[in-house]
Amino acid sequence: MNRKLRMGMIGGGKDAFIGAIHRIAANMDGLIELKAGALSINPDIAKASGDMLFLDPSRIYLDFKTMITAEAARPAEERLDFITIVTPNFAHFEPAMMALDNGFNVVIEKPITFSLEEAKLLDAKVKETGLTLLLTHTYTGYPMVKQARQMVAAGTFGKIRKVWVEYPQGWLSKLSEREGNAGAAWRTDPKKSGKSGCMGDIGTHAFNLAEYISGLQVEKLCADLNILVEGRMLDDDGAVLLKFNNGAAGVLQASQVAAGEENALKIRIYGELGGLEWAQQEPNTLLVKWLDKPTEIYRAGNGGAHLSSYETHNARTPGGHPEGYLEAFGNLYRNFALTLGAKISNTQAPKEAADFPTTTEGIRGMAFIDNVVRSSQSDVKWTPFEV
Amino acid sequence: MNRKLRMGMIGGGKDAFIGAIHRIAANMDGLIELKAGALSINPDIAKASGDMLFLDPSRIYLDFKTMITAEAARPAEERLDFITIVTPNFAHFEPAMMALDNGFNVVIEKPITFSLEEAKLLDAKVKETGLTLLLTHTYTGYPMVKQARQMVAAGTFGKIRKVWVEYPQGWLSKLSEREGNAGAAWRTDPKKSGKSGCMGDIGTHAFNLAEYISGLQVEKLCADLNILVEGRMLDDDGAVLLKFNNGAAGVLQASQVAAGEENALKIRIYGELGGLEWAQQEPNTLLVKWLDKPTEIYRAGNGGAHLSSYETHNARTPGGHPEGYLEAFGNLYRNFALTLGAKISNTQAPKEAADFPTTTEGIRGMAFIDNVVRSSQSDVKWTPFEV
Amino acid sequence: MNRKLRMGMIGGGKDAFIGAIHRIAANMDGLIELKAGALSINPDIAKASGDMLFLDPSRIYLDFKTMITAEAARPAEERLDFITIVTPNFAHFEPAMMALDNGFNVVIEKPITFSLEEAKLLDAKVKETGLTLLLTHTYTGYPMVKQARQMVAAGTFGKIRKVWVEYPQGWLSKLSEREGNAGAAWRTDPKKSGKSGCMGDIGTHAFNLAEYISGLQVEKLCADLNILVEGRMLDDDGAVLLKFNNGAAGVLQASQVAAGEENALKIRIYGELGGLEWAQQEPNTLLVKWLDKPTEIYRAGNGGAHLSSYETHNARTPGGHPEGYLEAFGNLYRNFALTLGAKISNTQAPKEAADFPTTTEGIRGMAFIDNVVRSSQSDVKWTPFEV
Amino acid sequence: MNRKLRMGMIGGGKDAFIGAIHRIAANMDGLIELKAGALSINPDIAKASGDMLFLDPSRIYLDFKTMITAEAARPAEERLDFITIVTPNFAHFEPAMMALDNGFNVVIEKPITFSLEEAKLLDAKVKETGLTLLLTHTYTGYPMVKQARQMVAAGTFGKIRKVWVEYPQGWLSKLSEREGNAGAAWRTDPKKSGKSGCMGDIGTHAFNLAEYISGLQVEKLCADLNILVEGRMLDDDGAVLLKFNNGAAGVLQASQVAAGEENALKIRIYGELGGLEWAQQEPNTLLVKWLDKPTEIYRAGNGGAHLSSYETHNARTPGGHPEGYLEAFGNLYRNFALTLGAKISNTQAPKEAADFPTTTEGIRGMAFIDNVVRSSQSDVKWTPFEV
Repeated sequence: MNRKLRMGMIGGGKDAFIGAIHRIAANMDGLIELKAGALSINPDIAKASGDMLFLDPSRIYLDFKTMITAEAARPAEERLDFITIVTPNFAHFEPAMMALDNGFNVVIEKPITFSLEEAKLLDAKVKETGLTLLLTHTYTGYPMVKQARQMVAAGTFGKIRKVWVEYPQGWLSKLSEREGNAGAAWRTDPKKSGKSGCMGDIGTHAFNLAEYISGLQVEKLCADLNILVEGRMLDDDGAVLLKFNNGAAGVLQASQVAAGEENALKIRIYGELGGLEWAQQEPNTLLVKWLDKPTEIYRAGNGGAHLSSYETHNARTPGGHPEGYLEAFGNLYRNFALTLGAKISNTQAPKEAADFPTTTEGIRGMAFIDNVVRSSQSDVKWTPFEV
Repeated sequence: MNRKLRMGMIGGGKDAFIGAIHRIAANMDGLIELKAGALSINPDIAKASGDMLFLDPSRIYLDFKTMITAEAARPAEERLDFITIVTPNFAHFEPAMMALDNGFNVVIEKPITFSLEEAKLLDAKVKETGLTLLLTHTYTGYPMVKQARQMVAAGTFGKIRKVWVEYPQGWLSKLSEREGNAGAAWRTDPKKSGKSGCMGDIGTHAFNLAEYISGLQVEKLCADLNILVEGRMLDDDGAVLLKFNNGAAGVLQASQVAAGEENALKIRIYGELGGLEWAQQEPNTLLVKWLDKPTEIYRAGNGGAHLSSYETHNARTPGGHPEGYLEAFGNLYRNFALTLGAKISNTQAPKEAADFPTTTEGIRGMAFIDNVVRSSQSDVKWTPFEV
Repeated sequence: MNRKLRMGMIGGGKDAFIGAIHRIAANMDGLIELKAGALSINPDIAKASGDMLFLDPSRIYLDFKTMITAEAARPAEERLDFITIVTPNFAHFEPAMMALDNGFNVVIEKPITFSLEEAKLLDAKVKETGLTLLLTHTYTGYPMVKQARQMVAAGTFGKIRKVWVEYPQGWLSKLSEREGNAGAAWRTDPKKSGKSGCMGDIGTHAFNLAEYISGLQVEKLCADLNILVEGRMLDDDGAVLLKFNNGAAGVLQASQVAAGEENALKIRIYGELGGLEWAQQEPNTLLVKWLDKPTEIYRAGNGGAHLSSYETHNARTPGGHPEGYLEAFGNLYRNFALTLGAKISNTQAPKEAADFPTTTEGIRGMAFIDNVVRSSQSDVKWTPFEV
Repeated sequence: MNRKLRMGMIGGGKDAFIGAIHRIAANMDGLIELKAGALSINPDIAKASGDMLFLDPSRIYLDFKTMITAEAARPAEERLDFITIVTPNFAHFEPAMMALDNGFNVVIEKPITFSLEEAKLLDAKVKETGLTLLLTHTYTGYPMVKQARQMVAAGTFGKIRKVWVEYPQGWLSKLSEREGNAGAAWRTDPKKSGKSGCMGDIGTHAFNLAEYISGLQVEKLCADLNILVEGRMLDDDGAVLLKFNNGAAGVLQASQVAAGEENALKIRIYGELGGLEWAQQEPNTLLVKWLDKPTEIYRAGNGGAHLSSYETHNARTPGGHPEGYLEAFGNLYRNFALTLGAKISNTQAPKEAADFPTTTEGIRGMAFIDNVVRSSQSDVKWTPFEV
């Protein structure tokens, strides 16, 4: 590419958390510029947000349909390359389908859609159009998560036997949805969030991480979903026993009422020869454990021969200069941009750039929600994982 | 008391791990002296072990029955005060019953017996004789575990909603029982260990800790026990979903094939207002978490007003002088000795000394094994916790 | 501002570490766009770097003088707002002076100049021109460093008694400057780096952090500089005893031969009532210690009432979403951009934006180098800190 | 030996901290029994303490001279094997000399004596009598400290270049000696404690640890001792620049006014190839750092081939069962007892048992205090380390 990619954004007005995150992630590496937005369904917020972001007034839109139509009509040299969708869950599908139908590549916040059915339709549309879609499962963007996946894939630990993944948060310990917390309100509202609260919001991240690093797929599960704060409409806590397709056992735990916890996603995987441990709150460290020798502390950016090219590709700074959540998010955008840029300019992106989540992960995630909810409602212990 | 208590020991010869631990724990505070032993069923080891421990040759026995009979016949001023039983699980019940029948107080390594039925009989015998029995659930002897229990009991965290307890070890990652590891051999042999391997050996510790700190009781559970090393006869891994009697949800995880882990028992408990986290491998720290203010690092021996008298009673050194597993074990013995000494000398022990595990905890632990195994074999999700 | 600020860059071609860091930091928040560059003294690298960064070919320059002259001649609506200088130390002063003389604001990598004299001249020029200069002492950009400074300033810990700051790195453990490491080569060359190696490169960061958080100034010092790798031309290790202007004692340690260390900058400050501890490699945590109550774990982005507005202003994400070195660096640029933007648009920036390092800190840093080197060569214990 | 060693104790009544610690350490391994004591200069406390410890009333003494004389007159089969001295610093020398003169081996709390001269006389007496003396520099009893020393001695890290040792405590942040704290009172009183407060009390531990692990000796130093709490009579804080006999540089820091710190002794040593880090508050972990591969976490009791026989000899439990301060202290007693027992019974102790501190370390420690105080009072930067 000899130019930055042009991004439009649906949702993400100045009152929204995740939109700002997407913009930082997209800005970081100088490969992308925000050119248009339908940033809010509130016209005043939409305009104010566009101004705040220095958008050309003619490209500040009040609704996504107008934006997609208008942008599709622009000449190639100024037309958007892709559209990022950061609305609440229930409002992902329609703009994503319309964007694809109008020739725009898509970035979409997770969970991919409101239902599994929508996810499948979206996947079919991506395949039909040949366009590129990035699903922002942020945590797979961390260098040490890449490292972990590559080590497991290389057989470093032998056959994987056990996967433990946990995701405690505490921010829903009170009935915040009734106290004016907008983020809490839609996340706990089944009409906006979907069948599941905690499992949909963060359980899907944990599930995605477990399958991504282990390279395995869940085959059956046994779920216990709980509403631990009285008056809440969706699960705010849960645990799931897992069986993987190679016979490994697993446990997935997620809670949004673990009072005092911030965002403590953590995964441990054990094989015949050793294991690994990674915690999102100290993301530059990967503990590598061995049966017969000392645990090793792998560090991001360290540059040693023990690090995979996937780790190196996704680290911007030398060891000891901590990278964090925004860089992990930025890696998703960077890999998406490198892939898309190469496609547009008919060049070759490095193989490491192709490793980002898309509809495949989106379908698995939506199926996870479905299966977990079904299991939770069942008296039978094991529920097969159906897609 | 104006003298040390006199201890006898059954099992724990010089080739055994846990016997040596019991002796250090008993020695530590100068309240107890080892006076007699039937230390091994191998006569040579029994004798050599007795010599190594400087026992009077006349009090080195070759079998426990002889010891109990002979010691019971000794005059009061030299008769044993209590007998410690550190044989494998299957050989706990008979000597314990005989000791009680002969008027000896008892210390017994966990799990208390081979079966729930035996545990109930033993409990009845303790009540009938009025003697004192200590069950060495070591982990409840740590000062910060005491502190945690007291904080929960005081309502510090409001109603408890969630209990997560985990116990990963890696030492059975290979089929060590076939490679000459004696400890592995009996622990994985259903004839010597009982119905369960991992859950019996370490799951019971996790269960005991969860009920001890939370002050709650499990009402139903859903267990998944696994044999992850081919050729093994008993579970070496498992996870259990829990429901407590106040409605709290819980998860208990234990594994002996978590390659690279040592003895990583850890518990987290969350209530409406905050939570706590304690890890056995850094036992002098208790993390106290809050909804609306910074996490606090409680430290053992620190002496601050925030620490319970139960913590202080069980700490020997000022903050920053780490105490460990042996001191926790020693606290069990010390509290048992203070209680027993007061009984013998007709004085009053401090109330904190009464807090040590006995047959009540033993019955809960054996029931846990029974219920977990039953649940594991069932296709129904929830199994009521029966005692 | 209703537009992004326009940045030019001197140095920082595609083979340079710190230039890329500056660009990410400048890009991150969407307030700045790179518009011109004299990116290398090697014309091929200068061109290739400009192309890689999608610069307009007419604004890719082969030397800084041409760039400054040409950009100064551009019309206001496209003229650069500021110029970032990321050349080696010896090449900071001349472009900085010329930029200021031509009306450009300046961002400059530390140490500010090659000598204290230059630093004073630059400071005078900044004052004379009324322009804004940012000196990128990155570590003061971290939210928890801001928090620490505000707590000390508020008297939270009473009078400060002790300051311990340390900065171990291991990357110069070998004679890398003779093995083709370009970064090592100029940093260990007195002609390019200045009077001091380790103390100039990282000791100045430690010194700046100590004075920034404590709010104190060093009054005298006793330095021991060492060359621990044979054949090196400048110090690669050192320690400095400090006395501050309020009577507090301090120790500053820095080493680039601490084999196995990455970038382990850490500071501890103690007052009458408590203290604090911050480590750059886990930058989102600030330990707050008290005489009579438990240590508290302050966390960045946590949003609690205990956090200063300076912390909040400099955090982009909620607690548990780790921010790192690039965000800290980005905070310097963001605060500089907010300040400069407000000046240009005649509006008011938030007070927190004014808190970024400039020539004042640059002069202190250069004086630190001078005084440390002087002390190191002296047989007298204490050397007064002269500026 | 076919019996326990018989110990007497001078000082250490029931109101004293360190006496109780010595007794636990001596009891722990069942090799030693307390048989006599002159436990306090207060007769009531002496008697009550003896009773509390179940001493034979005939062996509870009211002053040390009577005890030594009386015990020396007892028949060999009941005579004490050694005498432990746990009085304040100024009262070490006289009883130690008298004990040796009467044929008793000696255990002595550090610092060994009140002055360097006394230390030399005591050393001469030990050599003259051929008796055995243990100086309880506790921290060298930790398994991972043994491991560290052995690794350095084996050349694992190449030539040692840098030694950083620090010992922050906070317990003297207030003028506690005027508020009824007896331990604070004598430690800050030059008549009872000696020339130095903080450096004598804890600086000597840090110094001992640095020389023990590095295998090096300090050749010159530059000290800054401070009284940071107004009204105190002896230093409560200090830092010392060090030069070792192989050219390595070092820094020793100690403070008793680091508010909020407990007992945070920590050492880091770096050589050409790597380094190590050990912190007393997490004593079962030794971080082993490398130039070109990941940091390794060595763990006590782990049993791996990477662990030295000195580590294994000094660990009682398998990995993950934390041992602490009392076990480290117990190792001093155990090694002393094994050595003394072998001498008495004319057998051979394992070579690892010979590794305990004695008058050699005592002399170095007293010289450290002398040299540090002399340097602190000097305007010349470097003071040669004289013994």
